[in-house]
Amino acid sequence: MELTMSKRMAAMQPSAIREIFKNLTDPTVIPFAGGNPSQEAFPVKELENISRIVFENNPITALQYSISEGYPQLREAAKQFANSREPGLTHPGDGIIITSGAQQAIDLAAKCLVNDEDVILCENPSFIGALNAFRTCRAKLVGIDVEADGISLEGLEAAIRENPRAKLLYVIPNFQNPTGATMSQQKRQGVYELCRQAGIVILEDNPYGDLRFTGKHIPAIKTMDSEGIVCYCGTFSKIISPGLRVGYAIAPTALLDKMVVAKQCNDVHTAVLSQIICCQFLQSCNMAGHLGALQKLYRGKCELMVQGLRQHLPRASFTAPEGGFFIWCTLPADIDLMAFVRAAGEAKVAVVPGTTFLPQENTPCTAVRLNFSAPTNQQIVEGVERLGRVLDRFPR
Amino acid sequence: MELTMSKRMAAMQPSAIREIFKNLTDPTVIPFAGGNPSQEAFPVKELENISRIVFENNPITALQYSISEGYPQLREAAKQFANSREPGLTHPGDGIIITSGAQQAIDLAAKCLVNDEDVILCENPSFIGALNAFRTCRAKLVGIDVEADGISLEGLEAAIRENPRAKLLYVIPNFQNPTGATMSQQKRQGVYELCRQAGIVILEDNPYGDLRFTGKHIPAIKTMDSEGIVCYCGTFSKIISPGLRVGYAIAPTALLDKMVVAKQCNDVHTAVLSQIICCQFLQSCNMAGHLGALQKLYRGKCELMVQGLRQHLPRASFTAPEGGFFIWCTLPADIDLMAFVRAAGEAKVAVVPGTTFLPQENTPCTAVRLNFSAPTNQQIVEGVERLGRVLDRFPR
Repeated sequence: MELTMSKRMAAMQPSAIREIFKNLTDPTVIPFAGGNPSQEAFPVKELENISRIVFENNPITALQYSISEGYPQLREAAKQFANSREPGLTHPGDGIIITSGAQQAIDLAAKCLVNDEDVILCENPSFIGALNAFRTCRAKLVGIDVEADGISLEGLEAAIRENPRAKLLYVIPNFQNPTGATMSQQKRQGVYELCRQAGIVILEDNPYGDLRFTGKHIPAIKTMDSEGIVCYCGTFSKIISPGLRVGYAIAPTALLDKMVVAKQCNDVHTAVLSQIICCQFLQSCNMAGHLGALQKLYRGKCELMVQGLRQHLPRASFTAPEGGFFIWCTLPADIDLMAFVRAAGEAKVAVVPGTTFLPQENTPCTAVRLNFSAPTNQQIVEGVERLGRVLDRFPR
Repeated sequence: MELTMSKRMAAMQPSAIREIFKNLTDPTVIPFAGGNPSQEAFPVKELENISRIVFENNPITALQYSISEGYPQLREAAKQFANSREPGLTHPGDGIIITSGAQQAIDLAAKCLVNDEDVILCENPSFIGALNAFRTCRAKLVGIDVEADGISLEGLEAAIRENPRAKLLYVIPNFQNPTGATMSQQKRQGVYELCRQAGIVILEDNPYGDLRFTGKHIPAIKTMDSEGIVCYCGTFSKIISPGLRVGYAIAPTALLDKMVVAKQCNDVHTAVLSQIICCQFLQSCNMAGHLGALQKLYRGKCELMVQGLRQHLPRASFTAPEGGFFIWCTLPADIDLMAFVRAAGEAKVAVVPGTTFLPQENTPCTAVRLNFSAPTNQQIVEGVERLGRVLDRFPR
């Protein structure tokens, strides 16, 4: 029998990145396409020790069912950690939920807030995982251009004016995925003010916030949230391990309570062993030292890629990011983007076409997203050289 | 600002069981309310060893991002295991996805198949976690009575006739939650035939199938699935560990491919450490011996509870289950169910009112669901005695 899929899923396609990722088993392909942390970044010894201690001291808790809100000690440790990184992050009336990665926090927040045909405002371009989650809520996506210092406030104002059904604004203020742009302090205030006036909830996603390797910290939008309109999403995927799937959301309890119910219906709770491992890591490790080492690692990788791009792709333009995992590299305006991506693939360099990240996929775009966190230093040097040779084959 | 919740979530309330579960931290309360495996059932030593070996041999795979379909070796091992338990389970054109517990498999299947206002047929009563997941899809639930040998075929036939928008039938054929009833071979054939004729997808949930402790194995409905209309959900929660959150679905690839996309949007993938631990357990442990020990453990607990109920609650009626975790205990027809549940709580015995499991919560019901897997033998004896004293206080 032919099965008919639901309206919410019928048009959904697999994420191009996840699909590319499946083909990354070929070790000769240079991985600029994914968003994996560096293999060198995993605190393997510490996690191994913690795991051993959990099985010695607390196996039943790690193996038994738990509550949907999350392992209580991790909720406390994550809240403390987030507030230590972002002073004033939590407000009276806020709560915290542990989620199966920040992806689930984004998905649950949208499911709890957005009806079919409602509008979700987002940065253009933006994180494909979030955009696809919004699409499964049958929301209409309206993208607002990202400038070097973050989302266009004029664009946001116009989008709010033109979309009375705008319910949610999704932003990644730090080292945005995919552009690497960081939203200025002034724009964060502007975004908060515009959304507050319009009654729009802000979904603030901060997966890379702990990985600033240059420039000055800018406080999260959530720190301004006197009105209770911001849902802040964090994750341990980039600083401990993505495979463990542990993220969290800090939000007003009215929203959070519904997200807990939605999570009960979705996966009951996040894997407890993963939660306890993250909890013990936060409690027992020198987090400042650990994060410092990660920042140093990724600063080096980013600088290598920036140098290579300047040397080998002089016709491309890009802004060097102050943190995170990605460089958004805009190729000459007349280039056939897909032909470039294919040619790069033939040269065994995997890159993602910028079109993947567009809320409206048919908008013209000649950028590629380049990931510098996963490849080795040698792969970065070699891969950028190859991309330069590929680009040289395209006519001026 | 007051936040307005989406239509799909506005009316949703926390699962009564999850809420009761939160209050179960009081160790003096006898836990007949939950659905936890016995603490004695966890293969702690084996899992501890496996976890140590994973960190020694394969830490990066366990900690890094993975693919949404699931860890390839676990997909293979789970498929083999499921087919060894249910010969002929998979058919040409079927695939397998690893999910974050069977709950996620149920949730994803419904999201991929059901539109707002579509009808999901289900057993009456049924598993609250599934019913709530269906409610978040804005489906209309139509319950069909469960008899001692499973769902009423006349009821199913009438429901199909009366509900042209019926899209999905959700059933738990083995040791159903909450009734403990097992669907007969004949009824499984009847269910398959009726659904095949009506073009209705069957969502077959088999969380307890490996825990048959008496009677004869009856093949899963999925084994008959020549037409590709059955999505079969399994889990390692009851036989390895629920805290690891690893389940799976075996289904026609047309459905499965969409479930993979939905999973990408939902939590990207299931925790890899959890997946590898389950995989290694399936591959390296004597599964027949392990399952035999679990069956023996739960047979003993079930018999204790059955004896106690016969002795101390002669006014209640129930059917002794052939496996699983639950006894459905129907109290005298004129009893005030909620008053009984409250009085049991005051006597420090936690039970769930049967109304929790009804697709239409206002249907009259005087049953409670009693769980025998989680309490110790002593707690079973003492708890049933207390329930008897509580019931005796209610007038005849």
